[in-house]
Amino acid sequence: MSTDSDPDRHPAVQKQRIFVSEPMGNKSVFHLSGINQILGQRLAAAGFAHACTVLGMYLVLQKNRRQFQRWFCDTCGADVKQANECFECLNEWCDYFL
Amino acid sequence: MSTDSDPDRHPAVQKQRIFVSEPMGNKSVFHLSGINQILGQRLAAAGFAHACTVLGMYLVLQKNRRQFQRWFCDTCGADVKQANECFECLNEWCDYFL
Repeated sequence: MSTDSDPDRHPAVQKQRIFVSEPMGNKSVFHLSGINQILGQRLAAAGFAHACTVLGMYLVLQKNRRQFQRWFCDTCGADVKQANECFECLNEWCDYFL
Repeated sequence: MSTDSDPDRHPAVQKQRIFVSEPMGNKSVFHLSGINQILGQRLAAAGFAHACTVLGMYLVLQKNRRQFQRWFCDTCGADVKQANECFECLNEWCDYFL
């Protein structure tokens, strides 16, 4: 059974749909699209253990896709596809809640 | 007549009450408590023209009051009282919307 407490089991689209369905509160970074177990651990080690801290960087970078991609890939070794999934997830969440 | 389009005319408490009453969307930085005309101009010049970009820094600094105060005062020359008003404003907004 797939539950929100095990976000890695959702493919990206479903993961994003769940994430943007409610306030992020104190959710861990693993709930964001594009972030698997390894990337999440690297982000946490870099001081980004929570989804809201990654949101913070997205906002500080003024929602600029290119700059966010660069920061994200540099910080956790993600590829561009993963960086884009995370960007889209934050972007859609902001459309609903920011 | 005092309106939301002229946020400087509200004292801090009322300004905060208005700010936390709705999503911040694309509001300018002047709508945040603790930010007067001069501080807002300095923040805008430093790349923080919108309230959501200041929110981003608050989140990147993990909602840490001391670190936010330091960043805020260094960036726009605010005093600690102004930094605290801005911090409280973002803190309460996050309680409702994040």
